[in-house]
Amino acid sequence: MVTGVQTTDATETGTETVTVSVVGATGFTGGELLRLLAGHPKFDIQQATSRSAAGKSVGSKHPPLRGSGLRFTDPGDLESVDVLFVATPHGVSMDRIDEFFEIADTVVDLSADFRLDSEGQYDEWYDGHTSPEYLEQAEYALPEINRENLAGADLIAGGGCNATATILGLYPLFEHDVLAGGEQIVVDVKVGSSEGGAGGGEASSHPERSGIVRPYAPTGHRHEAEIEQFLGTSVAFTCHAVDMVRGASATAHVFPTGPVSKADLWGAYRESYEDEPFVRLAGGGSGVYRYPEPKAVAGTNYGDVGFELDPSNKRVVVFSAIDNMMKGSAGQAVHAANVALGFEETAGLEFAGLHPVGAP
Amino acid sequence: MVTGVQTTDATETGTETVTVSVVGATGFTGGELLRLLAGHPKFDIQQATSRSAAGKSVGSKHPPLRGSGLRFTDPGDLESVDVLFVATPHGVSMDRIDEFFEIADTVVDLSADFRLDSEGQYDEWYDGHTSPEYLEQAEYALPEINRENLAGADLIAGGGCNATATILGLYPLFEHDVLAGGEQIVVDVKVGSSEGGAGGGEASSHPERSGIVRPYAPTGHRHEAEIEQFLGTSVAFTCHAVDMVRGASATAHVFPTGPVSKADLWGAYRESYEDEPFVRLAGGGSGVYRYPEPKAVAGTNYGDVGFELDPSNKRVVVFSAIDNMMKGSAGQAVHAANVALGFEETAGLEFAGLHPVGAP
Amino acid sequence: MVTGVQTTDATETGTETVTVSVVGATGFTGGELLRLLAGHPKFDIQQATSRSAAGKSVGSKHPPLRGSGLRFTDPGDLESVDVLFVATPHGVSMDRIDEFFEIADTVVDLSADFRLDSEGQYDEWYDGHTSPEYLEQAEYALPEINRENLAGADLIAGGGCNATATILGLYPLFEHDVLAGGEQIVVDVKVGSSEGGAGGGEASSHPERSGIVRPYAPTGHRHEAEIEQFLGTSVAFTCHAVDMVRGASATAHVFPTGPVSKADLWGAYRESYEDEPFVRLAGGGSGVYRYPEPKAVAGTNYGDVGFELDPSNKRVVVFSAIDNMMKGSAGQAVHAANVALGFEETAGLEFAGLHPVGAP
Amino acid sequence: MVTGVQTTDATETGTETVTVSVVGATGFTGGELLRLLAGHPKFDIQQATSRSAAGKSVGSKHPPLRGSGLRFTDPGDLESVDVLFVATPHGVSMDRIDEFFEIADTVVDLSADFRLDSEGQYDEWYDGHTSPEYLEQAEYALPEINRENLAGADLIAGGGCNATATILGLYPLFEHDVLAGGEQIVVDVKVGSSEGGAGGGEASSHPERSGIVRPYAPTGHRHEAEIEQFLGTSVAFTCHAVDMVRGASATAHVFPTGPVSKADLWGAYRESYEDEPFVRLAGGGSGVYRYPEPKAVAGTNYGDVGFELDPSNKRVVVFSAIDNMMKGSAGQAVHAANVALGFEETAGLEFAGLHPVGAP
Repeated sequence: MVTGVQTTDATETGTETVTVSVVGATGFTGGELLRLLAGHPKFDIQQATSRSAAGKSVGSKHPPLRGSGLRFTDPGDLESVDVLFVATPHGVSMDRIDEFFEIADTVVDLSADFRLDSEGQYDEWYDGHTSPEYLEQAEYALPEINRENLAGADLIAGGGCNATATILGLYPLFEHDVLAGGEQIVVDVKVGSSEGGAGGGEASSHPERSGIVRPYAPTGHRHEAEIEQFLGTSVAFTCHAVDMVRGASATAHVFPTGPVSKADLWGAYRESYEDEPFVRLAGGGSGVYRYPEPKAVAGTNYGDVGFELDPSNKRVVVFSAIDNMMKGSAGQAVHAANVALGFEETAGLEFAGLHPVGAP
Repeated sequence: MVTGVQTTDATETGTETVTVSVVGATGFTGGELLRLLAGHPKFDIQQATSRSAAGKSVGSKHPPLRGSGLRFTDPGDLESVDVLFVATPHGVSMDRIDEFFEIADTVVDLSADFRLDSEGQYDEWYDGHTSPEYLEQAEYALPEINRENLAGADLIAGGGCNATATILGLYPLFEHDVLAGGEQIVVDVKVGSSEGGAGGGEASSHPERSGIVRPYAPTGHRHEAEIEQFLGTSVAFTCHAVDMVRGASATAHVFPTGPVSKADLWGAYRESYEDEPFVRLAGGGSGVYRYPEPKAVAGTNYGDVGFELDPSNKRVVVFSAIDNMMKGSAGQAVHAANVALGFEETAGLEFAGLHPVGAP
Repeated sequence: MVTGVQTTDATETGTETVTVSVVGATGFTGGELLRLLAGHPKFDIQQATSRSAAGKSVGSKHPPLRGSGLRFTDPGDLESVDVLFVATPHGVSMDRIDEFFEIADTVVDLSADFRLDSEGQYDEWYDGHTSPEYLEQAEYALPEINRENLAGADLIAGGGCNATATILGLYPLFEHDVLAGGEQIVVDVKVGSSEGGAGGGEASSHPERSGIVRPYAPTGHRHEAEIEQFLGTSVAFTCHAVDMVRGASATAHVFPTGPVSKADLWGAYRESYEDEPFVRLAGGGSGVYRYPEPKAVAGTNYGDVGFELDPSNKRVVVFSAIDNMMKGSAGQAVHAANVALGFEETAGLEFAGLHPVGAP
Repeated sequence: MVTGVQTTDATETGTETVTVSVVGATGFTGGELLRLLAGHPKFDIQQATSRSAAGKSVGSKHPPLRGSGLRFTDPGDLESVDVLFVATPHGVSMDRIDEFFEIADTVVDLSADFRLDSEGQYDEWYDGHTSPEYLEQAEYALPEINRENLAGADLIAGGGCNATATILGLYPLFEHDVLAGGEQIVVDVKVGSSEGGAGGGEASSHPERSGIVRPYAPTGHRHEAEIEQFLGTSVAFTCHAVDMVRGASATAHVFPTGPVSKADLWGAYRESYEDEPFVRLAGGGSGVYRYPEPKAVAGTNYGDVGFELDPSNKRVVVFSAIDNMMKGSAGQAVHAANVALGFEETAGLEFAGLHPVGAP
């Protein structure tokens, strides 16, 4: 126990719990949701659905749930709950959203189905949308940029992991008008293999996936849409797969069109994030971990952000690192649900990581 | 929240906390102790000593402690506390033990200095002992085999990580007299790089240490002494370094001199461990994680144990896996302190691991 | 160029080449065979068959073959050649062996189909044999134990990778009667992910396979049959998957029933291997690589062997390391073919490895 | 043997060899030089110097040299040779260059000491230069951009690994005037741990270095100087350390100021590289390895180059991958020496890599 470290006091917001189920619980994201909800003082897990593993022990799929006694339920047997977390592939939620709201008061969807504001964007970046009437109602799950709207929200749309890392890194520059506008921005992202989900084919097999620096989605990554929606600017985005399981690291190369000083930058980042429970500034300093690194946030809901000014190239280099399974999906969803339901923001998300840790 | 999952209720054993300091806090083990104590409802951290980093932020060395506000203290400035955890190299505690007891009522030492029962063993396996008068008083920190003696103990000696993995695997065979005696036992252990501690030389550098299966201490490993002390039998022990950071996996090949059935084995393991909060039996079953694996316990205080009978070779193969930084050192120490001080056994040790996770 | 390093002199055994094709060339072993044959001065590659990739460039599957211009051929279009290397799954060769001998004078089969001496062994360890009449004719591909019979052989049976590592480690003890007989022998093997072949399911996916120490085939591994056939003794065999792609490391724990000295051991190993071009003794010494390690043989056809005497446990610990794709399959097959066809033994196998190298 | 695959014919350029020694042979680069020279048909190794390991076996440090019989020589005992390869830290060669030319006719220096054209650049990017009179005479070792000047050169300056990867990727755009000028160019590089050399401190230790995506030299990397010297334009350069041992992957994000078509790009890259023995174009296509990846060139002297056009961001993304120990240092040096001395360009550099391979 240390002063300043967040701990969850179950009594603080009352002892009543809300019931919760997870749809699509065999995947990595579903498993992480269950893990977080199982350790959360306010959620009472009812069901975890899986078409392929119905009846089997949840712990046989997700080792951290071994002691939970939970078994997968057939999706057809889903019962009413207060809150429903949905971790199905893109396209499923938009088809079943009416059904979900018959079952639950609050729906937290972790797919891309409700991230974008308009049907037009789904036409451009995805294969259209089958329930566009819900788009306006949906609230993006990132409290750092959308806290006010999340309070009391009944449809929450989890952000994309790479978009989350990028937005966290760049947001202060735009929130505080550090940039004059019209900047060239390159975002070069490095991600772990869990982003590809469970299973996967030849390219995801250990012999082929180990030790790589592999360009994937070199151009036209769908997360560009989210980034542009929230920052109001386009970014040139490229993603590389590297040898880790968890983690996304975004390096943004920004070329300001006007003058920017180091003081401007520190001012903006401090103002945006100094009260945020899950964003830490890591810029320079001493020791091994001087800049944001996925290892230093592995297993946690932290987003670490740092930057350097490169005067000779008139460039700002912004580094951000998240655990794609946490701040990039399951942790972000629980954080947003905490905000929506009026719980302590950090409830269930206190884990601060390990040191040392390998390729997390 | 799930029925059956341990959660710590700070009110259960009263709300008073005890003061605690960590000596030798720059190393990996010291950092993990601080991390666990910082999240523990009953311990109130006072000081973390470091000769080399006195005055620096603890978080600059150990990323999980970034939010703690703690700074390293010079060892000469150590103040009185209720409990002192000592994570110094072997040989330091035996020289300073009198001083430690002037400062604290309870000393938990994580080195090898008080693990063995007699001065003779230190003469044989180490370089002798400078405070042999404390050996009788010291209690081995593994509650699974020493819970009764740990209650109220004032000098606790943390077990060696490889010894812990081995003892957890083999103990039920001896506790329940499954073996007739005189068995040949081979223990082949695979360990991660954190066992070598921070720093390290050429052999521990990333280019030379990556991807290895490296025999080290092929014979004569000092942990043999502990194993023999607690099991009452000798084992032929060999250790290999493999490519992970955390984790120790022990495979024991046991050749019973009398008949042993699968039912005998299940009976013994269930009886020894069914009420243990930190030992899980993992034997066969379905899914990817059918046997004990370091990955499945990474970051947790669990020891997973499983076995197979090999009738054609008249052999029992026992697998056990721990996180060497947790069940193999810092977690075991906190567990033992919980027992000694009458706290909830699982307090501060609830983390159940991550899935998926890379080379933890 | 250094005195003592083997180089291939194409003129030494004449400049004529023999024609060769590889059946089953999409898999890892088939790809490695093609790579070795493409760099071999005496083999002239005609065809590389693949049912799934017929017509496609071999380089699109196997990057080292990018410059070769080779394309996969449909297995039905296989033409006559001097030598046929077969890298199909177990069970295929035994069904097609007559057909293979219509096409080629010499068949080198890398599956398990002709490794064992008798039909009875296939009934016991596999699912029987459909062409048992070829078993007597087949010669085991390991020149270190079978060089004389390989000369002029027309059916060569590649050894299993784990069996090869084990046999290389233990053979001198039996060849030179170091052991009195009736010894207890435990063999604990650690292997890389390429042993599972291309593709693979969930357990082989990068997120689940990274950083593991996973018991697989804890008992009853089929390679026990080969080991017993060549050593004349049973071994208690257990295999673990660890985080590397290439490599097999076998640690044999041997308990001699009579007295054995270090001089006996060195004598036996030197006598067996001092003239072998592909076996190196690595026992103790200084530096980082003191014992056999898969890293130190990665990409090479070397088998490194070392040992330690453990007097207090009356044990000999033998370490051996190979690259499972080379000495454990494709390299062994080319070596055996060199012997069978009277070529320079080291032809095409001169690569001596890299330093540093990661998880090879 | 396959038509089209380069093989070295020792007789082609005559059978006489030249004598060669390596100064600074304990480091990774020195070891790789020795390995390549030992397998080269035209070089006859005389000495390998090492201050710290004089008298010891070269194989004890570099496993691939185990069979060579070579021993390290004290630097003070260096004797006359035809060619001297120097692999000492930056700053040593500039102090000893006169001495080197007393010993050898040709000096190939792998440090940064003679890479830049003018003393002013050394004042700006390094700590000045002690032998600036040699700068004009020195020829940059990359034959792809400097072949004509390398022929007959007596002082060859090996390029920096990150600069080499970057230059290979961008050179065709500049050689063939694909760009109109004034482009914004970001180069985001990912490198393995061997770039840090042998030894290394805490940040390079396995527990801290595993699984990372770590920004290092976020701005102001010295290789910017070389890149700008050869491309005639500035680049905004940032480097990340990732979890592999060998390899450098450069992703260049280029924003053309005028129109550029895919045909323009293919035209330029084909014209620059279609006759180059060590550059392969990898752009799109099918299979797992569609773009340049360090894994696919590990152990080889290849530089793989590919690109994509990103019309919506008016960007060209160029990917290039090399093995930093080969094309990025030792291999490049041997290639350059082959050109300088009139040997077959590919002599000693035929190794085409492995598949599968882990973190190389």
